[in-house]
Amino acid sequence: MTDLRHPFTAHQPDGRNASATEVLGKSGRSDPGTILEIPARQGRAVRVSKGQHLRVINTHGSQVGDFWAFSEADPGEHLSMEHMRPDLRKLTPQPGDAMVTNRRRAILTLLEDTSPGVHDTLIASCDIHRYHKLGHQGYHDNCTDNLRMALSAIGILLPEIPCPLNLWMNTPPRESGDILWLPPVSRPGDQVTFRAEMDLIAVISACPMDLLPINGEDSIIRSLSVSILA
Amino acid sequence: MTDLRHPFTAHQPDGRNASATEVLGKSGRSDPGTILEIPARQGRAVRVSKGQHLRVINTHGSQVGDFWAFSEADPGEHLSMEHMRPDLRKLTPQPGDAMVTNRRRAILTLLEDTSPGVHDTLIASCDIHRYHKLGHQGYHDNCTDNLRMALSAIGILLPEIPCPLNLWMNTPPRESGDILWLPPVSRPGDQVTFRAEMDLIAVISACPMDLLPINGEDSIIRSLSVSILA
Repeated sequence: MTDLRHPFTAHQPDGRNASATEVLGKSGRSDPGTILEIPARQGRAVRVSKGQHLRVINTHGSQVGDFWAFSEADPGEHLSMEHMRPDLRKLTPQPGDAMVTNRRRAILTLLEDTSPGVHDTLIASCDIHRYHKLGHQGYHDNCTDNLRMALSAIGILLPEIPCPLNLWMNTPPRESGDILWLPPVSRPGDQVTFRAEMDLIAVISACPMDLLPINGEDSIIRSLSVSILA
Repeated sequence: MTDLRHPFTAHQPDGRNASATEVLGKSGRSDPGTILEIPARQGRAVRVSKGQHLRVINTHGSQVGDFWAFSEADPGEHLSMEHMRPDLRKLTPQPGDAMVTNRRRAILTLLEDTSPGVHDTLIASCDIHRYHKLGHQGYHDNCTDNLRMALSAIGILLPEIPCPLNLWMNTPPRESGDILWLPPVSRPGDQVTFRAEMDLIAVISACPMDLLPINGEDSIIRSLSVSILA
């Protein structure tokens, strides 16, 4: 088993996960307007220039997408949930909200959200330890390794693993502080659109969690789509 | 101005903040039973051996303490709020709860809490960017630099800046998702006691936030105390 203490080291998954080898466009840069698939259980990196729009599409409606954004100039600066929450004074971004980095600079603005707006900012991306604690034995695809692999596929060494924005994940905290684990309320074709406020690299992982109902009652993992708009 | 992009680089504060030079005990290791002061606006590191108890005391009752814990064997493994929340399925730890690292291993167990149990796990530690966005000009003491300095004072280079456990910080999220900024509900002498589940280094910063009422309606910053129990 590979040592996972260091954030840039991923487990070696089985042959079906191509996150470390398949690249969208040229080193993550794709032509505006092209619809790109994030295969089920896998992750991909997408380069977005300042001013461009990035759209993430919940093709099948029930799929959670773990989402990260890193400054292209310095990947040590990245979208940060714990810095975004005090900046917005709310848990979850809504259309019009600027989302900040760990240096509290805007990296993305959420422009549009056709879904009911239920997303999570509280929960770490799943990793091999999570699946083992839930009773799984052996390797299991996971969003943390997908992040590591998707960035390594375009030559980027990950400095740390930030908490993701979990698109469409329905894990609301109650006033009591208890967190619920519920299926998404999104519908097929729902999409969120962001404007890049700096040159950045976004990573999207089609979350492979099939031991909890966060990807729908049937726990079938499906693909997502992304597109860059000029 | 020092480049703050890298997590181990702190601003140079003015001469009143001794977080980078004053050390508790011998390189952070103190005799069990001794009451140690965390001066107002400053941070200190404390080494705790597996099985020892660490007590943090809200001496004056109204002071927030930003709290971190790092594995002594590998500071890249640390207490992680975003990993703790799904493990506990709640926002805030309560007595009896094991708190996990970014590898989902228990690092501390919360044994006792004499306060009403209101603590925050959602908000990044304050930093110079936060104070500048709130309108402050020039340097302002901040918990992020206090963390960097307190660890550097005992020779530890910080690999990243995790989200802290903000002891006694009263910033509850409403069902709407809005986050409130309220004074602490703790009382003088309230204390939380943890058991170390591995050899660790804890860092406590007496939060210098005086531009929001999180440290009491008077926004006067006060000291905290810590003690190791055998």
